[in-house]
Amino acid sequence: MKIEVTFTGDSITPQMVTNHAVVVIDVLRATSTMVTALANGAQEIIPCLTPEEAFQILGCAGEKPCLLGGERKAKIIPGFHLGNSPFDYPPEKVAGKIIIMTTTNGTKAFLNAAGAKLLLVGSLLNSGAVARELTQQTDDVILACAGTGGKFSYDDILAAGCIVHKVSRGNPEILISDSALMTRHIYEKHQHHLAEGLFQTYHGKRLLALGLKEDIEFCTREDFYPIVPVWQKGVIKIMDTTKGLMIY
Amino acid sequence: MKIEVTFTGDSITPQMVTNHAVVVIDVLRATSTMVTALANGAQEIIPCLTPEEAFQILGCAGEKPCLLGGERKAKIIPGFHLGNSPFDYPPEKVAGKIIIMTTTNGTKAFLNAAGAKLLLVGSLLNSGAVARELTQQTDDVILACAGTGGKFSYDDILAAGCIVHKVSRGNPEILISDSALMTRHIYEKHQHHLAEGLFQTYHGKRLLALGLKEDIEFCTREDFYPIVPVWQKGVIKIMDTTKGLMIY
Repeated sequence: MKIEVTFTGDSITPQMVTNHAVVVIDVLRATSTMVTALANGAQEIIPCLTPEEAFQILGCAGEKPCLLGGERKAKIIPGFHLGNSPFDYPPEKVAGKIIIMTTTNGTKAFLNAAGAKLLLVGSLLNSGAVARELTQQTDDVILACAGTGGKFSYDDILAAGCIVHKVSRGNPEILISDSALMTRHIYEKHQHHLAEGLFQTYHGKRLLALGLKEDIEFCTREDFYPIVPVWQKGVIKIMDTTKGLMIY
Repeated sequence: MKIEVTFTGDSITPQMVTNHAVVVIDVLRATSTMVTALANGAQEIIPCLTPEEAFQILGCAGEKPCLLGGERKAKIIPGFHLGNSPFDYPPEKVAGKIIIMTTTNGTKAFLNAAGAKLLLVGSLLNSGAVARELTQQTDDVILACAGTGGKFSYDDILAAGCIVHKVSRGNPEILISDSALMTRHIYEKHQHHLAEGLFQTYHGKRLLALGLKEDIEFCTREDFYPIVPVWQKGVIKIMDTTKGLMIY
C-alpha cells in the first residue's frame, strides 16, 4: 500500500482517485463537525455545494427529519439551522436527523473525490479509527486535505500527518510518499500540543479572531470518536468497521 | 511582505505571480545545476520546454558559443553536450558559454511564472544570497517548488524552508503563510543533515538508485555560491545584487 497526501480540494481529480481509498480532511471545521454530528447520533449527512442546493434538497425531503448546516466565511448561513461548529451538533439537536450540509472547502473535496473506491471522512477526532480502517485494506491511499480558500491549510496537514503516523507505525512495508512523509514530520513536531501549533497558523489565527478558540481546542482532540464515516452515493454515514458495511 | 510556498510547477499560474517576486526551486537538480553553471562562469542560460526547442534555438544561435544541457528521466538527452548534474558544468566546460537547457520539471515552473515582477533561481546552494535579496524588496514572495512529475518533492521543500528560515529570522513583520511555515519546520528538522534527510525521500531514493549520491550531497550544500540568478525575457543571468541590475 502506498499513501500520499494532497493539499487542496481543487488538486483532487477523478483520474487520481480511481482505485484508491480517499480520506477527505477539513479539520477546521467541516470534517470535524461531520464526525461529531454522526457520533452524536445524526442519521446521515448530505454534503452539497451551495446554500441554494441545500434548500432544494430540503424542499424535496418531505416528512424526513432534516436540518440545514454549514458556513460561508466561517459564519452560519441565513435561514440555516446549524453553523459549522462541532458545538452546534449536540445529541439533543441532531440525534436521528439528516443533516444537509454545505461548507466552503470540504464539500468541494468530497465531490471531486466522488469516484474513489472508498471515500472516508477524516479528522483528528477520528484519526485512530480511520487509520485502523486503512490498515485493513490494500488499495493505495490518498489523504485529501480540503485546504482553505484554494490554499494549503496547516490544520489539515496535522490530521493527515497523524493518520500517516498511525498507519505507518509498525508497518514498514507501507510506501510513504514525500508529501505524506512531510505531514508526518509536521504532526510529530506538534503531537503533544496540537491546538497551540494551530494558534500560530493563518487559519487558526483567523478563527481565534472570530472568537472560536474552543472550536480549535475541540477539533484538535485526537481519537475522541472511534467512528469512520463513509461517503456513498452522495450520503455520509457511519461505517460498520467490523463488517466493512455501513450502518443503516 | 508576505511569503508563501507552492508545491508543483503546474500549480503556478500567471494570475498568481503578478506583482510578486517568485523564486523557482528545483533542488534535484535543475536549479542547483543552473546556479552552479552560472557560478562557474556560464554567460547565460536559456530554459526551454523540449529537446526539439533546444535544437532549434541552437540552430538560430549562429556563431554564439552554445551548449545544450538537460535531462529526461534523470539522464542526458541524446545529442546534448551536458546532462543535468552540477558536475557536468565545471568552469573549463561552461565559462563564457550560453547554456540552452531543458529539464522535466524546472523549466515548466519558469515558463508558468514568467509574468512575475521579479523571477529568481533558488536552490540550497544559493539560499543565503536569495534570502538576502528578498529582504531587500517589498513585494510579496512566492517560493515556487517545481516538484517531480507533477507531484510534491521533498528536496524542494527543504530549500524553500531554508529560504523562509533565513528571510524570517529577525524579521517578525514578515507574514508567513501556512505553507511557508510548514517548509520552515521541515528545513529546521533536517537543518544539520540535509543530505541524509533526502536519502529517505522518494526522489532521493530514485537518484541514489541511479548512482547519483554525490549529486544529492552537492545539491544540499547550503550557501555554497553567493549568487542570485534572475530570469528576464527568457534568459537567466546573474543579478548584480549591489545595484539590483543584471551583469552583462
